[in-house]
Amino acid sequence: MNTNKKLNMTMLCDFYELTMGNGYFKAGYKDRITHFDLFFRSVPDKGGYAIAAGLEQVIEYIQDLHFEPEDIEYLRSRKMFDEGFLDYLANFKFTGDIFAVPEGTPVFPNEPILTVRAPAIQSQLLETYLLLTINHQSLIATKANRIVRAARGRTVLEFGSRRAQGSSGAIDGARAAFIGGCKGTACTISDQLYGVPAGGTMAHAWVQTFDTQYDAFRAYCEIYPDNPVLLVDTYNTLKSGVPDAIRAFNDVLKPRGLTKCGIRLDSGDMAYLTRQARQMLDEAGWTECKITVSNSLDEIIIQDLLIQGAQIDAFGVGERLITARSEPVFGGVYKLVAYEDDEGNVVPKIKLSENVSKITTPQYKRVYRLFGNETGKAIGDWLCTYDEDVKSNCNPDGSLTIFDPDATWKKKTINNFTAKELQKPIFVGGRLVYDMPSLEEIQQYCADQMETMWDEVKRFDNPHNYYVDLSQKLWDIKYDLLTHNK
Amino acid sequence: MNTNKKLNMTMLCDFYELTMGNGYFKAGYKDRITHFDLFFRSVPDKGGYAIAAGLEQVIEYIQDLHFEPEDIEYLRSRKMFDEGFLDYLANFKFTGDIFAVPEGTPVFPNEPILTVRAPAIQSQLLETYLLLTINHQSLIATKANRIVRAARGRTVLEFGSRRAQGSSGAIDGARAAFIGGCKGTACTISDQLYGVPAGGTMAHAWVQTFDTQYDAFRAYCEIYPDNPVLLVDTYNTLKSGVPDAIRAFNDVLKPRGLTKCGIRLDSGDMAYLTRQARQMLDEAGWTECKITVSNSLDEIIIQDLLIQGAQIDAFGVGERLITARSEPVFGGVYKLVAYEDDEGNVVPKIKLSENVSKITTPQYKRVYRLFGNETGKAIGDWLCTYDEDVKSNCNPDGSLTIFDPDATWKKKTINNFTAKELQKPIFVGGRLVYDMPSLEEIQQYCADQMETMWDEVKRFDNPHNYYVDLSQKLWDIKYDLLTHNK
Repeated sequence: MNTNKKLNMTMLCDFYELTMGNGYFKAGYKDRITHFDLFFRSVPDKGGYAIAAGLEQVIEYIQDLHFEPEDIEYLRSRKMFDEGFLDYLANFKFTGDIFAVPEGTPVFPNEPILTVRAPAIQSQLLETYLLLTINHQSLIATKANRIVRAARGRTVLEFGSRRAQGSSGAIDGARAAFIGGCKGTACTISDQLYGVPAGGTMAHAWVQTFDTQYDAFRAYCEIYPDNPVLLVDTYNTLKSGVPDAIRAFNDVLKPRGLTKCGIRLDSGDMAYLTRQARQMLDEAGWTECKITVSNSLDEIIIQDLLIQGAQIDAFGVGERLITARSEPVFGGVYKLVAYEDDEGNVVPKIKLSENVSKITTPQYKRVYRLFGNETGKAIGDWLCTYDEDVKSNCNPDGSLTIFDPDATWKKKTINNFTAKELQKPIFVGGRLVYDMPSLEEIQQYCADQMETMWDEVKRFDNPHNYYVDLSQKLWDIKYDLLTHNK
Repeated sequence: MNTNKKLNMTMLCDFYELTMGNGYFKAGYKDRITHFDLFFRSVPDKGGYAIAAGLEQVIEYIQDLHFEPEDIEYLRSRKMFDEGFLDYLANFKFTGDIFAVPEGTPVFPNEPILTVRAPAIQSQLLETYLLLTINHQSLIATKANRIVRAARGRTVLEFGSRRAQGSSGAIDGARAAFIGGCKGTACTISDQLYGVPAGGTMAHAWVQTFDTQYDAFRAYCEIYPDNPVLLVDTYNTLKSGVPDAIRAFNDVLKPRGLTKCGIRLDSGDMAYLTRQARQMLDEAGWTECKITVSNSLDEIIIQDLLIQGAQIDAFGVGERLITARSEPVFGGVYKLVAYEDDEGNVVPKIKLSENVSKITTPQYKRVYRLFGNETGKAIGDWLCTYDEDVKSNCNPDGSLTIFDPDATWKKKTINNFTAKELQKPIFVGGRLVYDMPSLEEIQQYCADQMETMWDEVKRFDNPHNYYVDLSQKLWDIKYDLLTHNK
């Protein structure tokens, strides 16, 4: 990306947001209040849950929304926009409302993780940047959370900048990976910008630049005696790498009474090599030496390595995390669900489709998560219209009867539960009303919320299908539009 | 990514580039001249070729390399860097040489697409940004080229911003897709910044915002009568979408004698629906109406749709292009291949590995492409050491005997050929010496160079393995280091 100037992200929009904006302007729909839901249709990797992320960058974007004179000039040069519309853009700012689930929340298909209520031109303009930001960071946070769970308490570090899809893929990817549970990153600027702890020691080039591997290791231990991590696979891990590392530790650290150190392996069979290396280190008295591995890791390989007794303290995960290689798309969409007519009535709108999965749930909504009071675990999520709530839907005994919107005859009555609204107000009338938590708080919140999920939902293969149910009223509106739309 | 300030991409480096830099500084290797090759090991999607891209952004990055006072302050706060090193960074600029293949060149595994010759700290610092930029854009240019070839002359447009992995994934991805052969993008800022033609007309929300679909279509035709493209699948493509579009064309365009228009389908079976829609449009006299389709397209689906007789004029390709979904990683690496000793001798260096595919080819090299004079087609690529060339390797009759480095007994003597060096000087002594071609020129160059590739190399499945051979001298150096390294 252009490194020599600050880009105006307001211009990172699909061109059709502008042709539509100009169209709303000319057709007299400029001030029509529209409601858009941002939601996704399926969890990547056939997983049971996703982790919402990216809201902080959405907030920064909304606060910075504006058109520079050069942007207006570019648009004018396209010779298709009304001068009145260009004037409108020159004075553009966001005046609407945004509600969203906090970053780090486990989220599920077909529930709004972000909702915009704003005049048509405004809500439309946001589409591309909101989607790309939430899609990208939720993709990486979700993948990171899977990988961290596979590591069962061992440290996972994000090492993928060099394979990221562009600079923001690296920078924001490291942030999202931290939310998902990674302990740190290799990406320096993500530390400087977001406080994601950045670390790293040496590449193969360090070893090659010296006349011998031992010289390279010795020099590194002398410069960084506090916790040198030596890369041992440049020539031969077991024949020379680990022995040279032990020799350097013995020669430099031992005389000073230092015991904190590590080795890193970046190739070969990690189950075999780490077991051998652990034995060699232990026999040489370096029992505190940590073993880090890298090399095309993901949650499946990590799970297998641990089953096979690999001796690993930390995982450096690169391309398969930073690109979510196994499924690199988070399919969030942004759909009109209602508008307000001239009398201020909220009119629900649906989008039908030849593909059933692409049919939307109309109407301005509330999103609840229902927790069992005895277990503390989440029972499911429940959506209702903006003008009702859980209480108004409860049976006289305080229980709530919910049903599966895909199989409406499947009903369940739940008792002794607590309902919490998932979306928080972020902007009201264009004004930021949300206190952003720190990145550490978001990471902790994510870990805490994952504790409320049953293990069945967290399985890598064939997880339990978490409930996202609709209120009767919401279902009736959807069914009515499904059967009566033109 | 932070939208409120310009980020310093110099800080987009793996942290170990800095720990190594500080180490070189303290170990007295600051001025050791190192040679690094940037190359990749396999083509994504098991394809036969890749398209190099991203050089222009590498050039901008190199020209902007510097550390701001706040960057130095951040590094000092890490309490591990020598003050002398921080002073060095405060005055940092690139003084080395860079050679690279031009953007748009078809490239192959295990040949250097970019080479850096610079003092160790400098060449090391570049690693992350060079890799992420070349990896990302080459990934997308390669994928785009596959998709464009599948479309057999029909227009392919890049529509993926909303699913891109971060803002630069969208912005630079649109640029790379254009290099690969896409005709345009939906991403407005990529047009403004790079001149990738941006276009787009309407989303489903446009149709939903009006009281009826016909009202929405009619309004759009009135505002954009020159070439309205109407999205026809919001409710039902054949029952109401195409009929409402025809009615709007009849009511608005016909009276004005306008015939240029289009429809877009975004769901359903594209083979069936486009054949039906084409027939309906033709019967209504709208034979010039173009049909665009979108919805999870890639080269395989496009190839199949055309075999099945789909009636499509243009493809809008989204997530599967902008993330290269089927294989979202371009595995470029950056490896030390030589350094210069105190007498200025170039000392070749190898990196061995337990994984044979990770063994590098040492030495500062030249890269040639050999073209048959009669066919104009590329025979293969040929690498030699920096101090030899094709001529010095030719047989007395002017022929050249080449051999497969993985199977050295497989030899071939070629006659009547022209050898062209692939890498061009980009920076010499830190000074830019390369005239960047325009983006249109790069796109044309890519198309021309693809014409020099045999069809066998371009197959999607099981393509011919293009030759990347080594000179005898280069092979001897590699073999010697393979057998004698410590």
